[in-house]
Amino acid sequence: MSEMSLVGIVMGSDSDYPVVEEAIRVLQKFKVPYEVKVSSAHRTLERTLSWVKVFEAQGGQVIIAAAGLAAHLPGVVAGSTSLPVIGLPIASGALAGVDALYAIVQMPPGVPVATVGIGAARNAGLLAVQILAAGREPLRSALRTYRRELAEEVERKDLALLTKLSEKAAAGES
Amino acid sequence: MSEMSLVGIVMGSDSDYPVVEEAIRVLQKFKVPYEVKVSSAHRTLERTLSWVKVFEAQGGQVIIAAAGLAAHLPGVVAGSTSLPVIGLPIASGALAGVDALYAIVQMPPGVPVATVGIGAARNAGLLAVQILAAGREPLRSALRTYRRELAEEVERKDLALLTKLSEKAAAGES
Amino acid sequence: MSEMSLVGIVMGSDSDYPVVEEAIRVLQKFKVPYEVKVSSAHRTLERTLSWVKVFEAQGGQVIIAAAGLAAHLPGVVAGSTSLPVIGLPIASGALAGVDALYAIVQMPPGVPVATVGIGAARNAGLLAVQILAAGREPLRSALRTYRRELAEEVERKDLALLTKLSEKAAAGES
Amino acid sequence: MSEMSLVGIVMGSDSDYPVVEEAIRVLQKFKVPYEVKVSSAHRTLERTLSWVKVFEAQGGQVIIAAAGLAAHLPGVVAGSTSLPVIGLPIASGALAGVDALYAIVQMPPGVPVATVGIGAARNAGLLAVQILAAGREPLRSALRTYRRELAEEVERKDLALLTKLSEKAAAGES
Amino acid sequence: MSEMSLVGIVMGSDSDYPVVEEAIRVLQKFKVPYEVKVSSAHRTLERTLSWVKVFEAQGGQVIIAAAGLAAHLPGVVAGSTSLPVIGLPIASGALAGVDALYAIVQMPPGVPVATVGIGAARNAGLLAVQILAAGREPLRSALRTYRRELAEEVERKDLALLTKLSEKAAAGES
Amino acid sequence: MSEMSLVGIVMGSDSDYPVVEEAIRVLQKFKVPYEVKVSSAHRTLERTLSWVKVFEAQGGQVIIAAAGLAAHLPGVVAGSTSLPVIGLPIASGALAGVDALYAIVQMPPGVPVATVGIGAARNAGLLAVQILAAGREPLRSALRTYRRELAEEVERKDLALLTKLSEKAAAGES
Amino acid sequence: MSEMSLVGIVMGSDSDYPVVEEAIRVLQKFKVPYEVKVSSAHRTLERTLSWVKVFEAQGGQVIIAAAGLAAHLPGVVAGSTSLPVIGLPIASGALAGVDALYAIVQMPPGVPVATVGIGAARNAGLLAVQILAAGREPLRSALRTYRRELAEEVERKDLALLTKLSEKAAAGES
Amino acid sequence: MSEMSLVGIVMGSDSDYPVVEEAIRVLQKFKVPYEVKVSSAHRTLERTLSWVKVFEAQGGQVIIAAAGLAAHLPGVVAGSTSLPVIGLPIASGALAGVDALYAIVQMPPGVPVATVGIGAARNAGLLAVQILAAGREPLRSALRTYRRELAEEVERKDLALLTKLSEKAAAGES
Repeated sequence: MSEMSLVGIVMGSDSDYPVVEEAIRVLQKFKVPYEVKVSSAHRTLERTLSWVKVFEAQGGQVIIAAAGLAAHLPGVVAGSTSLPVIGLPIASGALAGVDALYAIVQMPPGVPVATVGIGAARNAGLLAVQILAAGREPLRSALRTYRRELAEEVERKDLALLTKLSEKAAAGES
Repeated sequence: MSEMSLVGIVMGSDSDYPVVEEAIRVLQKFKVPYEVKVSSAHRTLERTLSWVKVFEAQGGQVIIAAAGLAAHLPGVVAGSTSLPVIGLPIASGALAGVDALYAIVQMPPGVPVATVGIGAARNAGLLAVQILAAGREPLRSALRTYRRELAEEVERKDLALLTKLSEKAAAGES
Repeated sequence: MSEMSLVGIVMGSDSDYPVVEEAIRVLQKFKVPYEVKVSSAHRTLERTLSWVKVFEAQGGQVIIAAAGLAAHLPGVVAGSTSLPVIGLPIASGALAGVDALYAIVQMPPGVPVATVGIGAARNAGLLAVQILAAGREPLRSALRTYRRELAEEVERKDLALLTKLSEKAAAGES
Repeated sequence: MSEMSLVGIVMGSDSDYPVVEEAIRVLQKFKVPYEVKVSSAHRTLERTLSWVKVFEAQGGQVIIAAAGLAAHLPGVVAGSTSLPVIGLPIASGALAGVDALYAIVQMPPGVPVATVGIGAARNAGLLAVQILAAGREPLRSALRTYRRELAEEVERKDLALLTKLSEKAAAGES
Repeated sequence: MSEMSLVGIVMGSDSDYPVVEEAIRVLQKFKVPYEVKVSSAHRTLERTLSWVKVFEAQGGQVIIAAAGLAAHLPGVVAGSTSLPVIGLPIASGALAGVDALYAIVQMPPGVPVATVGIGAARNAGLLAVQILAAGREPLRSALRTYRRELAEEVERKDLALLTKLSEKAAAGES
Repeated sequence: MSEMSLVGIVMGSDSDYPVVEEAIRVLQKFKVPYEVKVSSAHRTLERTLSWVKVFEAQGGQVIIAAAGLAAHLPGVVAGSTSLPVIGLPIASGALAGVDALYAIVQMPPGVPVATVGIGAARNAGLLAVQILAAGREPLRSALRTYRRELAEEVERKDLALLTKLSEKAAAGES
Repeated sequence: MSEMSLVGIVMGSDSDYPVVEEAIRVLQKFKVPYEVKVSSAHRTLERTLSWVKVFEAQGGQVIIAAAGLAAHLPGVVAGSTSLPVIGLPIASGALAGVDALYAIVQMPPGVPVATVGIGAARNAGLLAVQILAAGREPLRSALRTYRRELAEEVERKDLALLTKLSEKAAAGES
Repeated sequence: MSEMSLVGIVMGSDSDYPVVEEAIRVLQKFKVPYEVKVSSAHRTLERTLSWVKVFEAQGGQVIIAAAGLAAHLPGVVAGSTSLPVIGLPIASGALAGVDALYAIVQMPPGVPVATVGIGAARNAGLLAVQILAAGREPLRSALRTYRRELAEEVERKDLALLTKLSEKAAAGES
């Protein structure tokens, strides 16, 4: 949400937003300037292509593209830029995201999409930050901090569980 | 292969041709003028879109789009025309065409692709003919003949099998 | 619901109606005369076949056939007509529509079914309209308008999301 | 292959015959009179239905229906008779028989198909014999003999393997 | 629930009963004497085998075996009798019945299980009746009546839907 | 192949032997006494159960049970012993071992089977050794050696690849 | 929860605890000393490895490792110990545990994981007890009792269902 | 193969090399310095972790990790670095790479792996180049050239097919 976005986030439908939001939160946490776009690979293809071109021309570095069902958006975006494109499959409909996963990850030779897990918006955001961290030492350093925090969170939860189990045991429940 | 093609066949890679060929044979059998194009949804997107526009402007009526893996071609074509688009999933790679099937059939609301079975090029051609047959009585009539021939072929094979089994029985094998 | 239906919609069970309804709404929007039938490939096969014959004889042009589970209705209808048949898989039971998708799309050579996504009734309706639009310029033109509306809807939603995000940002949330 | 067949075997295509043959061998072994038919649920539906009617009227008791891909034949036959219908899915095409399995076993309520494994023609034949064995004591008794033979075959193979392993061990290979 | 049951219904767990119940209702409707057993292929194998032996010795004719997860009960029962065994896969746990379907239908050569759809208890019951109908003319006749009723039910629902749609149309909704 | 086997290997069919053989080689390498049995969960159930009982009574400690298709053998064995049972799914038939995997791993509560990968006979053997190593210090120590050898093999292969690549580079191929 | 745990339970996230709890209850029932750890294969890998080393050094005998999604924890633990490792796949996210099952069971040669069903925590616990029972006669004996109890529970449920059905019948409901 | 590799390629087994080779060719084409490592997530975990650390410390920027089966290598590498990690699933064994795909792409929150298609080594290489191209204008420019070449290749193949078809037609074959 700034002049000179480094990350562009495009989603095929605004119904994807509640999932995508977590990627945005990651970018905000790392203070990475970004922009958000709703645009479709089918319904507004030319608009999507224009946006990609302008984004790249203005110095954008990474694109996150989210879509569900026969998810063509990430691949179509990847076909029209030389920037790295992160594909985020959205679970939607009867196939629960397997369709989106296959339609995003199984790209033909020459046009890669960096795919993350179904609905894994947080990882999409982190991957964008990792890509940007090359040559941006503060970001690299922030990523190291983040990993330490993740580890500490696991340790805290481990402790909390042990405490809970001990109390239970003490209370004679076990 | 003529002025004023009614059916346009586009495939993402020339390696799809051996499968697609059977669709062409159907169109030839029904004397439907057609044209063939190799063009990609990712590597030559703009060229694909131009071809669709010209094809439609010159009176084309149905498009058959074939692709494998994360098969975006049929959907991207469908997004750029109001003609009916027949999607033909090609088996290729580790997922044996399930990826292509899902990427073609699970289109989002508003942009249908008329999907046939994995590798079912003959059916893609026939579906095109069925669509064209509206208001073209000779085609409709040829389709009826074709169905009769299909039925007769089944009957011939039934008879052939019975004969073979009878001979086997007579020869004391059963 | 008129003399001289162009589209016939047949479903295997009235429990499919809530899904199928969206196809009907599309036909109504495009003012395409249609008729609706509940008839089964197994329980009322002969009645189904009669209906197909009468529908075709009276000038029907496209059939939409919806079914769930081992969905045989679209294929059986396709086997008894030379009209294009659109197959609409309904999600139902433990396999969530994958059974219906496979049972509809994987037709043997000679008998195509134009399959749309699982539960994709809107696309079934639109595909019928696209097929009818050949030689019906007003329909073709309405389809173009429809596509424009779809695009505008995406643009509206894009704008709405941007506005929401800006307000959030202004409110100091980001 | 006789007057008064008890078992009718119908397959959608003569290309299914090499698989189906094993079912026939079982019927021959148990001296159960049978007949064989190539007929399709789509290409020769009325002929299929006629055959079912005649077969039932002439005292037929069980039907084995084999088909691949979107395998509708068993279900369509089951919908037109009150005889038990055994469905035999044939592996064919990119989905390797999963499509046929789902299209055969997931029948809607009211129209069962007794499904055996993909390509499991021997089991289809045995199931037919088991069904016929009610009230036919010699068949029941032959089935018991057959099961004993199966058991003895396992025991023989067990012994053969042990012998082979012992010899290997004696030869100092292990 | 009578002396001389013709159908034995065995389930691996009493939690399967709510599904299995529909099979029982079919047997009651056709006045087929049956008995019900909860017994496991793993936890009470010998008891299961004893029950099968007694059931067969007392003139039982068909067994319905229902189980979920790694559903071994139908196969184990089939291995210990020459009666036809109907396998009913129960949806349960993360794989939603696909595990049970595969574990029931994919039996090795020599030991068939007549498999119906996941949770398709009504079809399991009907298949048992169809098997019993050989040589029991009243049952055969009741099955024909049942099929007529099924057809009439479809026709009634067709009429009801048409009426509803007409009223809606008259009310100006369409 | 000795008095007092610690590991019993049972397979449903002698056609499983070429896969199972690798488990045997592991046991030989670790000098663990074992015995091999061909016996079926369906065709020779009682014989299977007897073998399990005798094996356990004679001091057997771990059972490896291998089977393909609807693989009931591991579960049935597990239901009749309190020894740990290792299940080895064999790829066979159209579903390529997924059926066997599900039929082995998805056991109901109370009757675990320690499942290894499809066709992973070496891992089945190693798991048996790991289980036996409790209280058998030489085995534990041999396992540690084995793990070191595995690591060294990886390192050797790493070196070999580097050497090959360097030579290629030196030869001007890169 | 004691000095000298025999079983170590490690889970990738404390959100797995509600599933894992059932394994703990089994260990408590069999009075097997255990310890519980929350530690990740990715976020706290070194801590996980340290815990494994300490656990093994202090006489631990079996490890249960639970994880969801791309479940690497069981395999990573198995790679760093020669103790038997039981893998417990947790259902989580769009793929409902199939991802975890494949990521746990399909281990490469040399590093087995003893996999139980998706969410099958009770079986994970029981398998640990079975492994420990070698050379611990009281455990072996408790397992035999447990199996008897399981059998009796099935029998009780069988009786309860029969009673319920009889009462229903007596009440004229059938 | 140089001082100061920018890309590190690690594979779980040297049997993955024939697939991985295509990624290397891409890096060579773009003159990106790289290094290759065979190291396992299970058999040589500590060595893998050391390599990652050294690679990162010496200025490495992107890691490509290839593995088959329960493919833990990419995730374990991703857990021990803040560099972007590209995961390349290798088809191997009965599940044909679906296991590897799920085990790589479905990473838990916090530890992304940029996954490409099954066996899509060329795309893995290209994605690495795209990531490196940020701030390396010659690489960016080479990528643009590469995309143009891809497009031209499609156009050449289109022309070649048209020519072939025309000649066939001229030769009277059509």
